[in-house]
Amino acid sequence: MSFVVEATDGAARAGIVRTAHGEIRTPAFMPVGTKGTVKTLLPEEVAALGADVVLGNTYHLHFRPGEDVIEALGGLHAFTGWSGPILTDSGGFQVFSLRDTLAAVDDDGVTFRSVYDGSLERLTPEGVAEIQRRLGSDIAMCLDICPPANVSRHEHEEAVRRTQLWAERQVDAPRAEGQLRFGIAQGGTDPDLRRRSIEGIASLPFDGFALGGLAVGENREEMLDTVGWAAPAFPDDRPRYFMGLGDAEGILEVIARGVDMFDCVLPTRTARTGSALTARGRLNLRNARFARDPRPLEEGCGCPACGGGFSRAFVRHLLNQQEISGLRLLTLHNLWFTLRLTAGARDAISRGAFDAYRADAHASLAAGPEEETWQP
Amino acid sequence: MSFVVEATDGAARAGIVRTAHGEIRTPAFMPVGTKGTVKTLLPEEVAALGADVVLGNTYHLHFRPGEDVIEALGGLHAFTGWSGPILTDSGGFQVFSLRDTLAAVDDDGVTFRSVYDGSLERLTPEGVAEIQRRLGSDIAMCLDICPPANVSRHEHEEAVRRTQLWAERQVDAPRAEGQLRFGIAQGGTDPDLRRRSIEGIASLPFDGFALGGLAVGENREEMLDTVGWAAPAFPDDRPRYFMGLGDAEGILEVIARGVDMFDCVLPTRTARTGSALTARGRLNLRNARFARDPRPLEEGCGCPACGGGFSRAFVRHLLNQQEISGLRLLTLHNLWFTLRLTAGARDAISRGAFDAYRADAHASLAAGPEEETWQP
Repeated sequence: MSFVVEATDGAARAGIVRTAHGEIRTPAFMPVGTKGTVKTLLPEEVAALGADVVLGNTYHLHFRPGEDVIEALGGLHAFTGWSGPILTDSGGFQVFSLRDTLAAVDDDGVTFRSVYDGSLERLTPEGVAEIQRRLGSDIAMCLDICPPANVSRHEHEEAVRRTQLWAERQVDAPRAEGQLRFGIAQGGTDPDLRRRSIEGIASLPFDGFALGGLAVGENREEMLDTVGWAAPAFPDDRPRYFMGLGDAEGILEVIARGVDMFDCVLPTRTARTGSALTARGRLNLRNARFARDPRPLEEGCGCPACGGGFSRAFVRHLLNQQEISGLRLLTLHNLWFTLRLTAGARDAISRGAFDAYRADAHASLAAGPEEETWQP
Repeated sequence: MSFVVEATDGAARAGIVRTAHGEIRTPAFMPVGTKGTVKTLLPEEVAALGADVVLGNTYHLHFRPGEDVIEALGGLHAFTGWSGPILTDSGGFQVFSLRDTLAAVDDDGVTFRSVYDGSLERLTPEGVAEIQRRLGSDIAMCLDICPPANVSRHEHEEAVRRTQLWAERQVDAPRAEGQLRFGIAQGGTDPDLRRRSIEGIASLPFDGFALGGLAVGENREEMLDTVGWAAPAFPDDRPRYFMGLGDAEGILEVIARGVDMFDCVLPTRTARTGSALTARGRLNLRNARFARDPRPLEEGCGCPACGGGFSRAFVRHLLNQQEISGLRLLTLHNLWFTLRLTAGARDAISRGAFDAYRADAHASLAAGPEEETWQP
C-alpha cells in the first residue's frame, strides 16, 4: 500500500504516503513549483523548510520547456534538482480557469489556446497521462473539468459526467515507473452531484482521491460543509487531497474534516506582495510602522529569515528597494509558517490533541497582529 | 598595522587587510551590495562563495533607508546580516556619474538632486565621514571628485585640487571604532595630474589608497599604462584599491601591476542579464543552443549552481520564464568565478607563479567558449 494512516483524531488523520522518491508525511502542505521551481527558492532551501513534496504544473511545463526537453534531461527531478516527491496536476485547472482561452469541450477532451503563443491545443485523458509519464512525477492527477462555483447545475452535471468518462480512460493509461495516480471528484457544493462524482471516481482503482472544484468562488461555509461529508466519503485507505487551499484557517478546517494533502500559491504569492503570514495574521511589511522595527517577522519563529536575524526594518527596506532578497526572505518565512502549522497539526493528531491545537491556532489568528509602531 | 604583504611576485602582491570585522585576503574582489544586499543573494551565500568583504553604497544607503535607521538597528552589519568586513564608498561616484542631477561643486562640497525624490542635497567631506561613521563600515572611502575620462585638463586639475582639499579635511574626521579610512587619487590618465594627486593623497595618514577616476571611459591600454606606474607610486605598506573593475582580463592585469582590492557590479549585473562568466568567456544562457544542454554552466566548476547539478537547459528555462531562481543561479556562478579567479591569483603569487597563471587565464579567455549545440 502506498498510504498508511498512523493516527486519527476525530475525522483528522496523520499518515504517510510512500512514493518512488520518498515519503510524504500527512497532513501535508505542498508548495507550488509552477514552472519547475518554487518561486524565488532553490530546491535545497525548500527541503530545509521541511517540505516533503512539491507540486509542478503540467500545463506550464508542457508548453515551456516541454515534456520532451524535461524527459531528455532525465525527468522532472533531475531537471529541477528536487529529489523528493513531486505531484503534477493535469493541466485541467489552468484550461478551465483561463476561460477566455477555452475553445471547446467534448466527451473526448478539451481544446484551448495556449497562453504562451495563442496556438490551438488539445488535452485528453490519455494525452495528460502521457505528458505526466514523461515528466516522471511521483503522483499524477487525472484530467478533470473544474467549473467555477457559480455555473448552472447543468454545467456542474456535465463536469461530473465528463470527469468520470475521462477518469475511466486515464486510470489504466501507461504511467512512469512507480507513479501514483489520483482521481478527482467534481460536483461543486451540490450534494447529489458531489456524491455521484465521489462514488464514480472512488469505484476506480486510484492510489488517492482529490476534491476538485472547491474554493473556486463558493463561500467558505458551504465549502467546509461539503468537505465535512465528502472527504470521509472516499475510501479510508487512500489519501485525500484538497486542491488549491493554503490559508491557515482553511488548512486547520480541512484537516479537521479528514483531508490529508493540500496545495496553494498563497504563501509564496503573499510573500511576493510583501506580506508575512504569522500565527496572529498577516503583516504588510511595506507599512511605515516597520521602518525601525528590529524584531523578526514573527517573534520566536525559527525560519531562515527570522532565525537568521533579519529585522522587519531590513525586510521593509529590501521590499521598498525592489530587492529580490526581500521576496526571498518573505517566501522562506511564509512557507515555513505554513509547513510548521501543518506539521503541528500532524503532531497534535498523533497526540489526540488536534481540537485544542486547532482552537488555539484559530484564537491566535482571530486576535490579529499588534498594531503599534516600534518605539526604540 | 592593518595591512601585511605576505608575498610578492613582480609587482603583484598577496596580503591581508585586518579590519574590525575580520581579515580580507588580497588580492580581493569585493562583491557590490549597493543597497545593503548583494542582489538576489543572502549574506551567508555570499560568505560561502568565499567573499571576505562586500561593498555598500553610501549614496543609496544615505537616502534609503538612511544612516539614522541603520544606526538605530545597530549599524550596517547588524542591519544587513553580513558579519564580515564592509567597505563603504563615499557617494561621490554616484553624484558625479549621475551628471544631470549635479547642481554645483565648490571647494566646500557638492550639491545635487537625489535620484530618489529630486530633493536638493549636499555632501561634504565631514558629512560623508559622519554618514559612514554611523553606518559603521570597516573601511570608509573619502569624498572625491570623479570626472569622466573625456573632460578637459582643467576639469581634471580641479578634480585633483578639490579631492586633495577634501581629503585633508576628511582624514581626521570622527570615525567608527576601528574604522579604516582610504584616500583616493584622481587625475585621469594625465601623468602629471595623476602623480600630483598620488603624492598629495599619499602624504596624508590614510590606512589605504585608491585609484579613482579610471575605467571611466578611457581605453584599456591607457588605463593599464597608468595603473602600471601609479599603483606602485603609493606606499608599499598600505593596500591599493582600484575602484570599479571586475572583468577577468582587467582583474589579472591590475593585480599584475600591484593592485590589492577591486570591486564591480559586472559579475552580478551580467548574471541578471542572463549571461554566465566562464574561464572561456561569456555564455548567453538565453541562446536556443542551450535548450537541451545537460552540462553545468561551466564544466568542473564547484559553485552552488554547477556543483548543485543545475543544467544550462534548466537555467535557460528559468530565465525564459522570468524565474528569480535563474538569476540567483547565475549570480552565484558569476561571483564564484570572479572570486576563484582572484583567489587563484593570490595562490599563484604566493608560489611565485603569477605570470604563468595570468598567461593561462588570458589564453583560455581568448580561446572563447565552444559554440556547438548540444547533441544528445
